[in-house]
Amino acid sequence: MMEKYIQIGHGSGGKLTHSLIKDLFYKYFENRFLAREGDSALLEAGSQKLAFTTDSYVVDPVFFPGGNIGTIAVCGTVNDLAVSGAIPRYISAAFIIEEGLAFQELESVVSAMAEEARRANVLVVTGDTKVVSKGQCDKLFINTSGIGQVEEKYAEIGVGSGIRAGDKIIINGSIARHGMAVMAARNFQGFKSDISSDCSPLNTLISDVLDTGAGIKFMRDATRGGLATVACEITRLSRYGIDIDENSVPVDENVRGMCELLGFDPFYVANEGKVVMVADAADAEKVVQTMKSHPLGRDAAVIGEVVDEHPGRAVLHTGIGGRRIMDMLAGGQLPRIC
Amino acid sequence: MMEKYIQIGHGSGGKLTHSLIKDLFYKYFENRFLAREGDSALLEAGSQKLAFTTDSYVVDPVFFPGGNIGTIAVCGTVNDLAVSGAIPRYISAAFIIEEGLAFQELESVVSAMAEEARRANVLVVTGDTKVVSKGQCDKLFINTSGIGQVEEKYAEIGVGSGIRAGDKIIINGSIARHGMAVMAARNFQGFKSDISSDCSPLNTLISDVLDTGAGIKFMRDATRGGLATVACEITRLSRYGIDIDENSVPVDENVRGMCELLGFDPFYVANEGKVVMVADAADAEKVVQTMKSHPLGRDAAVIGEVVDEHPGRAVLHTGIGGRRIMDMLAGGQLPRIC
Repeated sequence: MMEKYIQIGHGSGGKLTHSLIKDLFYKYFENRFLAREGDSALLEAGSQKLAFTTDSYVVDPVFFPGGNIGTIAVCGTVNDLAVSGAIPRYISAAFIIEEGLAFQELESVVSAMAEEARRANVLVVTGDTKVVSKGQCDKLFINTSGIGQVEEKYAEIGVGSGIRAGDKIIINGSIARHGMAVMAARNFQGFKSDISSDCSPLNTLISDVLDTGAGIKFMRDATRGGLATVACEITRLSRYGIDIDENSVPVDENVRGMCELLGFDPFYVANEGKVVMVADAADAEKVVQTMKSHPLGRDAAVIGEVVDEHPGRAVLHTGIGGRRIMDMLAGGQLPRIC
Repeated sequence: MMEKYIQIGHGSGGKLTHSLIKDLFYKYFENRFLAREGDSALLEAGSQKLAFTTDSYVVDPVFFPGGNIGTIAVCGTVNDLAVSGAIPRYISAAFIIEEGLAFQELESVVSAMAEEARRANVLVVTGDTKVVSKGQCDKLFINTSGIGQVEEKYAEIGVGSGIRAGDKIIINGSIARHGMAVMAARNFQGFKSDISSDCSPLNTLISDVLDTGAGIKFMRDATRGGLATVACEITRLSRYGIDIDENSVPVDENVRGMCELLGFDPFYVANEGKVVMVADAADAEKVVQTMKSHPLGRDAAVIGEVVDEHPGRAVLHTGIGGRRIMDMLAGGQLPRIC
């Protein structure tokens, strides 16, 4: 049963978002491409396989430690393509601008986009600009859509059809930085925080791992809804259970402190530079070492495994020996985080 | 010299939009794909040529006679691909929703998108949903990006490199309906108007024309900035002049009346179902007849021609024997028209 009005939680990436997608978008737009439910659609153009993805970015504030809305707009879309097994190639950039935005701010955003595009080796090839009156949007929203090329052998990586019990869960570094950096910028202007967003294009790290030939069964970037949401996604797609070992999950001390102070669970806080991989157990060490030799993977770690027990559930084994089921967010935790 | 703050006119599709594109976006995102300045970027994926385009839609109000924001979001992107000589295939749909929007309204929009997608034979394959708090956007903004396949022989049609003096300018029907329909819905709620938007997917009409083998040198859909802006675009790309015969341009009587009443020039008012073609003179009659046999081309007409005189300028020959230079809009005429 759908809610009668759209709530903030419908944009959280959690349960309400999933119900909106299922009950509305899939209902009307039914087709075999959508049905795969990956971060990107896997398309055919002649003999080529293409990944195609879109995201609108509404982050508040526009500028935060470690980046700005333009940084996320490029990195987020590059990462959605990369975790689908694609080599990101082309990006579109569509701007909805509130009348009165300083040209200099827009220029900083565009310049950051160009810089991240160079870093990720993608080209911004087409765009659009709309301007709305004051009060009709909040400064600046950006949509980026992206196209990547997918090698046949990676075509199933975005949907995890190869996941099996015993596979290891690996992450490339510490969680919750992006969410806490934006939170600090939004609520404590002037307050000096040393937390900066992890916003980064992950495509070279991912291709380094794939190039080792390691058996990677699934990848997903842990953005809205955080690591916990990806964990739930893995159990939902694979129908296996997963166990996550809390002590193995890297969280920076300052981030953990801020989460505790403000009452956030770091497992649900957004990241913009973290990929979760499901890898064949025999290759797990190789994957971690390959990540560690990349600047964006220094703190890579095995954080859990796929299990036959509790199918469809992600269980967190806490530092003090307890067990906690990780479920998708029911409402909205941090709106406008990306 | 750029303005220091973004103005409504930066989104008009006219002079300020062009200066923003040149002075900011092209400056930072320079590459050979962008440099073509078509409605879509023409890309390569293996041996395939692809067209890729993006547009954000912020139309106010969300519902208007003849369609809603979802209708335009699909038709606009389908048309941008089709005028680039592409067969539209895949569409993304990204929603920015204001908290509190009625679910039923969102469903009407999504349902309209699905209907137009079926009409245009494209698939909505990927999407995104963001929700912002009340007052942070105006009900609903939608971005659609699209991918189409381009046959080699049509690869230059989007940039008009084949335009020559003597070519005819052809349009598929009456102008200014979309702008006036939205205008009426925005400002005269309750006032009964019989003007409805021309919002339609033009891809089948365009493919009917291309299939005749007629020499089509250029196509562009006349949206923001209207027919006058496309006329200017033709002169800018080709470096020829063009003459438009005002008496030949179809304008419905009720639309003309409303334009006169409100002080709008129909040549600058937005359309969402009109394509302007530049055709070899020898094929002009065939093009018009092919359009007339399509439901969206009943009022097709030759409206002008490409000339050696006044290069770079579009001249309107008025009904009463005068001449008027058509220039791009300097400011904003009708914000949030699409």
